Amino acid sequence: MADILHRVGIKSSSLQDVYRALTTESELADWWTNDTQGDGSQIGNIIAFRFGNDGFDMEVSKLEEPGLVQWEVIKGPAEWVGTTVSFELKLDGDYVILLFKHSNWEQPVEFMHHCSTKWAIFLMSLKSLMEDGKGNPHPNDIKIDNWN
Amino acid sequence: MADILHRVGIKSSSLQDVYRALTTESELADWWTNDTQGDGSQIGNIIAFRFGNDGFDMEVSKLEEPGLVQWEVIKGPAEWVGTTVSFELKLDGDYVILLFKHSNWEQPVEFMHHCSTKWAIFLMSLKSLMEDGKGNPHPNDIKIDNWN
Repeated sequence: MADILHRVGIKSSSLQDVYRALTTESELADWWTNDTQGDGSQIGNIIAFRFGNDGFDMEVSKLEEPGLVQWEVIKGPAEWVGTTVSFELKLDGDYVILLFKHSNWEQPVEFMHHCSTKWAIFLMSLKSLMEDGKGNPHPNDIKIDNWN
Repeated sequence: MADILHRVGIKSSSLQDVYRALTTESELADWWTNDTQGDGSQIGNIIAFRFGNDGFDMEVSKLEEPGLVQWEVIKGPAEWVGTTVSFELKLDGDYVILLFKHSNWEQPVEFMHHCSTKWAIFLMSLKSLMEDGKGNPHPNDIKIDNWN
């Protein structure tokens, strides 16, 4: 098993603001993909994230407001199904620190390398959304390679 | 043991150009840190990368021109010493694909989360350097959190 890990710091004193950006449809659409459907604020709910013809369905599996959001991937590329995505939030000085983990990849395949870099880009989009009011969600996301 | 993985695609048909950016002092300084000293083009050489008072000494441990560059970390933060950094290059259509691996972290500590995101940012700096002629090396790197 292999995990993708990231850490970003958002200049903010409100865990609640960042938690909201991880649990509401309109704000998820503002940093990850503008084709987002579903309410992430209740355990058991499904959120559908689409990127053109591809995408993921996430089941909200754990919520500890305002410090933790966790999803299980229930639909998407084979490598993603059965993996877990989590966002842990904590205050540190003038920042909300987000510890990100996309865990339980069966193999460290080339697609996992791609997704690791792409998650960093999207988490920086979340940081921009919170700090400057504007993220770079799909389809206006920063492209990293020939897989986009 | 835990690994950081990334994948970036550089619009280029020259493996050699990207290999050079990973093995020469002046080009490493143009995307990672402007305080770089050492010639990375020979196995056994030491390259010193500094970020203010902190930094890393890397020993070039493997070179397969133009497809692979590998370093062992011989000096730096305790979590880095003994880890391995590798860059694998291959052509795919109009791109040079870079598969990055920073392997053998003893524990997936919070600092590893930070370094994972930061490596993505620096690899995107390398991509900018190769595609547009200008990277964002330290101290002009994009800041990701309160650890920079």
